[in-house]
Amino acid sequence: MTFKINILGCGSATPTLRRNPTAQVVNVLERHFLIDCAEGTQLQMRKFGIKFQRINHIFISHLHGDHYLGLVGFISTLHLLGRTKDLHIYAPEALGDIIFSQLKASKSFLSYHIEFHPLTSQKNELIFEDNLVTVHTIPLKHRIYCNGFLIKEKEHPYRLDIKAVEAHKIPIAWYHRLKKGEDYIENGVKIPLSTLTLPPVPSRSYAFCSDTAYHESIIPIIKGTNLLYHEATFLEKHEARAKKTFHSTVKQAAKIAKKAEVKQLIFGHYSARYKNTTDFEIEASSIFENSKAVEDGAEFSIDF
Amino acid sequence: MTFKINILGCGSATPTLRRNPTAQVVNVLERHFLIDCAEGTQLQMRKFGIKFQRINHIFISHLHGDHYLGLVGFISTLHLLGRTKDLHIYAPEALGDIIFSQLKASKSFLSYHIEFHPLTSQKNELIFEDNLVTVHTIPLKHRIYCNGFLIKEKEHPYRLDIKAVEAHKIPIAWYHRLKKGEDYIENGVKIPLSTLTLPPVPSRSYAFCSDTAYHESIIPIIKGTNLLYHEATFLEKHEARAKKTFHSTVKQAAKIAKKAEVKQLIFGHYSARYKNTTDFEIEASSIFENSKAVEDGAEFSIDF
Repeated sequence: MTFKINILGCGSATPTLRRNPTAQVVNVLERHFLIDCAEGTQLQMRKFGIKFQRINHIFISHLHGDHYLGLVGFISTLHLLGRTKDLHIYAPEALGDIIFSQLKASKSFLSYHIEFHPLTSQKNELIFEDNLVTVHTIPLKHRIYCNGFLIKEKEHPYRLDIKAVEAHKIPIAWYHRLKKGEDYIENGVKIPLSTLTLPPVPSRSYAFCSDTAYHESIIPIIKGTNLLYHEATFLEKHEARAKKTFHSTVKQAAKIAKKAEVKQLIFGHYSARYKNTTDFEIEASSIFENSKAVEDGAEFSIDF
Repeated sequence: MTFKINILGCGSATPTLRRNPTAQVVNVLERHFLIDCAEGTQLQMRKFGIKFQRINHIFISHLHGDHYLGLVGFISTLHLLGRTKDLHIYAPEALGDIIFSQLKASKSFLSYHIEFHPLTSQKNELIFEDNLVTVHTIPLKHRIYCNGFLIKEKEHPYRLDIKAVEAHKIPIAWYHRLKKGEDYIENGVKIPLSTLTLPPVPSRSYAFCSDTAYHESIIPIIKGTNLLYHEATFLEKHEARAKKTFHSTVKQAAKIAKKAEVKQLIFGHYSARYKNTTDFEIEASSIFENSKAVEDGAEFSIDF
């Protein structure tokens, strides 16, 4: 029941010897999602032992270079490694041409198919769904069109109270209906679900919100999420700069976390002007206790 | 009188933790040229202490990703660092759209001007010239349109033989004409140039040839060059593979060096299948003695 986030890059604007720009791999129930893919991402994956071919779905927040310039190289490397599985890319519409014009210029005929899913909506919408997991966009407020992503387990089944179930001699063939939440009728009498089952374990979720200005509209979307990654490009003393560039201060990130009642906040996308993250952690925890500055290579798990 | 080549990347196809794909910086008489710009090049520049803003001219051989995918990120970083000087890019025509469509998608308005020089000719042609240096294309034989580059000092002036010049009481105002190679007429008698001057120091040159199949047409263009970088993707045992992919074996690179009578051969662009370069050096030197395998971070000087 893995739900794990690997930070491959958490700097902003440009790669440095200390930090790569944005990229993360989310493993949710063995679905491996890549979120953003800055220049150098494939090298970070090698460094941190991420298996390239496990990634079948890539989500790109927006078309600033520090969030996607490693993508065409990654696509090309998957081909060189002999990939045959489809690769799904969810990204702002213009990225389609950017990818395919480069493949055309290099006369590359990929060994696999890319299914490009253009994102255009300004609304919170479902963009991925399978039997266990959903991904929704989180419309953000940035200089250009930008989405965060909410990755969520679907509701888990009710858990059978085996003793109670056996006492009522409920046929095994009926178990899956109990798990779905149906009541059981015994000799015309309804046995309440709550006497036969325990409530489902809660569904876990991860919200990625970068890049964005302080934007309260995201609060209902990410309400109560287990783990929130929110960009924190600046310290409070540079709030004016944050406003001008449609980024957030770390205190603003913490305010969003608090108002959305998330369980834990992690943050990154630091401006290169800061030497370390000590002041970021001080400012964040003054508003929201359970918060942490990320670094490249960090790993976070969401447990039940 | 610097003439220096810094190897930023010498692997092929894809970045690995050991080698970056192709990029080189050539400093010729304080003109700083970037040749090719694979993903990760700007990080290699930071690692090897190359000053970003000194680069005013970028030459791109061809549009396979391992030769240019770091370019848009580098352009963007120059902007973030506040560049105002023009940047000249010489590259296959299609790269113009690839660059400008990405700048458009990110709504980036650069702080400086890019002058894009599209390369389309199949012939050896002059593409850069100033008072001291020229750059010519070297048409190569690859799967897609591809040029090498010949970087050359212009002819140096004749050197005055000061004792002889003073003995003939030649006016100082005439010196620059002697340096250009004009004879001097004294009382109607021609004083031969050779009695007044020493021959110019030889002009130095560097030839970059990657990617290419074995291609003898380049020999007259690079004849006698001081330093030749020639791709050597494969060892001899993989010659069939080299032929199929329009690459060269290291022995083929050495044959070109020998036939072109260059002073020194360096080679790279190794396929990732080889663990080290020992066999490359053995095979190369069996044909051309003064040859050397390059690694990322290597530096070569061309002396008089």
